[in-house]
Amino acid sequence: MGNGSYERLERRFARIADLNAASRTVRWYSLTYGPPGGEAARGHQQATLGGLAHELLTAPECADALAAARADEPWQAANLREMRRLHGAAAALPTDLVEAKARAVSRAQGVWHRTQHEGDFAAFLPALREVVERVREEAGIRGEALGLEPYDALLDSYDPGRRGEGVAAMFAELEVFLPGVIDRVRGGPKPPGPEGSRADLERLARRLMAMLGLEERHVRLDESAHPFSTGERDDVRITTRYSGPPGEALMAVLHESGHALYTRGLPEDWRRQPVGRNRGMTAHESQSLSIEMQACRSPAFAVPYARLLNEELAPADDWEPARLYRVLNHVEPDLVRVEADEVSYPLHIIVRHRCETALISGALDPADLPGAFDDAVEALLGIRPPGPREGCMQDIHWSGGSFGYFPTYTLGALMAAQLAEAMRAAVPDVDREIERGDFRPLTGWLREHVHSRGCLDASSDDLVEQATGRPLDTGAFLRHIEARYSG
Amino acid sequence: MGNGSYERLERRFARIADLNAASRTVRWYSLTYGPPGGEAARGHQQATLGGLAHELLTAPECADALAAARADEPWQAANLREMRRLHGAAAALPTDLVEAKARAVSRAQGVWHRTQHEGDFAAFLPALREVVERVREEAGIRGEALGLEPYDALLDSYDPGRRGEGVAAMFAELEVFLPGVIDRVRGGPKPPGPEGSRADLERLARRLMAMLGLEERHVRLDESAHPFSTGERDDVRITTRYSGPPGEALMAVLHESGHALYTRGLPEDWRRQPVGRNRGMTAHESQSLSIEMQACRSPAFAVPYARLLNEELAPADDWEPARLYRVLNHVEPDLVRVEADEVSYPLHIIVRHRCETALISGALDPADLPGAFDDAVEALLGIRPPGPREGCMQDIHWSGGSFGYFPTYTLGALMAAQLAEAMRAAVPDVDREIERGDFRPLTGWLREHVHSRGCLDASSDDLVEQATGRPLDTGAFLRHIEARYSG
Repeated sequence: MGNGSYERLERRFARIADLNAASRTVRWYSLTYGPPGGEAARGHQQATLGGLAHELLTAPECADALAAARADEPWQAANLREMRRLHGAAAALPTDLVEAKARAVSRAQGVWHRTQHEGDFAAFLPALREVVERVREEAGIRGEALGLEPYDALLDSYDPGRRGEGVAAMFAELEVFLPGVIDRVRGGPKPPGPEGSRADLERLARRLMAMLGLEERHVRLDESAHPFSTGERDDVRITTRYSGPPGEALMAVLHESGHALYTRGLPEDWRRQPVGRNRGMTAHESQSLSIEMQACRSPAFAVPYARLLNEELAPADDWEPARLYRVLNHVEPDLVRVEADEVSYPLHIIVRHRCETALISGALDPADLPGAFDDAVEALLGIRPPGPREGCMQDIHWSGGSFGYFPTYTLGALMAAQLAEAMRAAVPDVDREIERGDFRPLTGWLREHVHSRGCLDASSDDLVEQATGRPLDTGAFLRHIEARYSG
Repeated sequence: MGNGSYERLERRFARIADLNAASRTVRWYSLTYGPPGGEAARGHQQATLGGLAHELLTAPECADALAAARADEPWQAANLREMRRLHGAAAALPTDLVEAKARAVSRAQGVWHRTQHEGDFAAFLPALREVVERVREEAGIRGEALGLEPYDALLDSYDPGRRGEGVAAMFAELEVFLPGVIDRVRGGPKPPGPEGSRADLERLARRLMAMLGLEERHVRLDESAHPFSTGERDDVRITTRYSGPPGEALMAVLHESGHALYTRGLPEDWRRQPVGRNRGMTAHESQSLSIEMQACRSPAFAVPYARLLNEELAPADDWEPARLYRVLNHVEPDLVRVEADEVSYPLHIIVRHRCETALISGALDPADLPGAFDDAVEALLGIRPPGPREGCMQDIHWSGGSFGYFPTYTLGALMAAQLAEAMRAAVPDVDREIERGDFRPLTGWLREHVHSRGCLDASSDDLVEQATGRPLDTGAFLRHIEARYSG
């Protein structure tokens, strides 16, 4: 390896990975078991872990080694590419901006938690404005360093290589197509999903996880206010909540299990290295939706799912696959993004995409956000939020400084459909096996073509192209929607 | 503050505190909820967090700032003294020895876990020998840097200021006194303590914690293979196990609650600073034993404890204070240290103290440990271990490289007795209040005289002297044993 720079980088990035992993554990603890009185202490710990990781990443010795390092193997070349990308992104930002954004986000999240319930946008606005200004600054600096438009620089931080122009073109196609489908198939108030005691639902959740091949030796299930997944390849943690509408707890488990399968399938030999990480948020969401939407809302899965429900829940509630399938795929526009059906969901994302691109470009002043948001919802979904609580204050993302993140939800849905189409062509009996409760043909294909590649591919588009023969587009998703909701 | 060195040190040590706190959370997670398959990943994280804390502590800029810093306030002077102590101890050890010891310990703990159950000392010996050699090396280097004998340097790392000569003198007094008490009051096989389902015991445990004043907002109770306590002032975690002998789970909760009260009572204003930490392991154990031994095995506590047991456990098991008190203070020598009664316990410690001082001085070769250990047990407790499993392989401490730690258990018992004597003189109605289930007079006194001082005192002896008027001695403990077990 010549000068040893590459080896030194591997050691440095392994330490960075450890700091990030420990920070995720502290965060997981906060959201699951941590006593509320310890929140400030844990905030200090996360700030220190993040700060030290940033210092390791931006240190002059790191820059020198990155300039000098050479890679022998293709995976090492990919690792070095990822190291350079992470270093470049971190080094571009001045420390005082990083800290100013962190302070703005910390304040805005606090204000959001206090004001969201009342929908008090006037009280929220100053904190939101501060975040938007810091993010615009960040986007400008990142963009300059990367030769990108400001919004593209934000997108790129969640889904490297993704550009706003392509996103806008795909979203325009969805915007034309989906409202017509909704008009055709909308079914009125949502029928309730499977109901049960917390203990029953948790037992069922564990049986579903086992069916998907998630091993207790490596994967935990816990409860939190909002479902999420986190952890490392060998120590994966998902959560669900049991207090939501009937059926939600289990669908959240299936969704997070898709994320968990991705993490569990990451390459063993590249643990603690950038190349061993997931290929960004679009790829990650494609894996949760491959399980939740593509596989687990299919007619095939309704068969073993109904059987499980009848085995584990009160016998009075007799689930039959055809009825279960209808419940799982019921379509009706609603104001709440996280409870939206598969057809409406992209329209919720397009609303947010419109607003956030305008906020970042400066075309929309934060003070005008509520009206712009509600207008977009009305135009796309045909319903109007009664106030900011159900409107622009619905999600925590923007107060968290996450601009450019929302699109990855829908890009992930497109990717899941495109992967599913390719997989069904390659493994024709996948649905028959799912009907028998056997996910191995499905997860085996995903592991080979997505999970085990880590960051070998430079972008999620390269990953999709490698797996399906072409970069991401809307074709497979539109065909999937047409097929599933054609009658 | 002149040159700003002190302020820079506060910032540096706050980061070190955060790293240590995050590491404790990762460790807690490993021992409670962490999936077993993630152990190696968590090991990497802890090594990185520990390594970075060590680097921050031993960096040249830290040494320079320590040399230049001046303190204005007494608490800052104490903080600076603790910073210098921590820096000196860390800087004395060469990195390759730190790593060699970590490897030896990691290996020995693995071997111990595999061989302890069979008592296979021959298989354990090479790993133990390696640890002993590394610890002797460490003790020599530390001792040279601090001007101390090797064993004193080890003792000092757990209980700063504590010296082997004083320990040996106190242990000699106990060794003379305790066997006679045992002969007088030994009561044959141990009567069973309160029994109940896991759910009943956990509910009871939470009521006991509430009675002691531990708030749910800041303190967690979980389950682990061995009870322990950890966390920070605002985020305290204790564990117990429900699988041990009847009664053990609740006594472990009371013991760990004593540790938790100490952590909760540490000075709020000095959080994340060395002066805000506990005053070492003797002081910490004195707090667990103030609760478990001094308060909760007293005749006064038997009254509310019996009432609680009768309220929460099966009504058939009718606990009456006098019988409960006898069960809680039953004396009979046994081979298992962690299940030993209050009178036998110090003799178990003296056995280990004899063996470990001889191992460190080189007078005892590790190969001869089993015989030396069993001889000491027989001489002091009148029973002989049937093999290494019940003998020198009983505890994990030595495979963990913890030499000089065992004495703090008994020094903590002496300190708890000495504190209790001073407290009863100052707050005469403390027992009457405990009888009513009110611990506030007790915990208030401990908070004022021990908890809230953090590391204001330079040593546990200074702390004891401040609270009781004299350094640690055996007097109060011997009077306590005499009074409790006089018949």
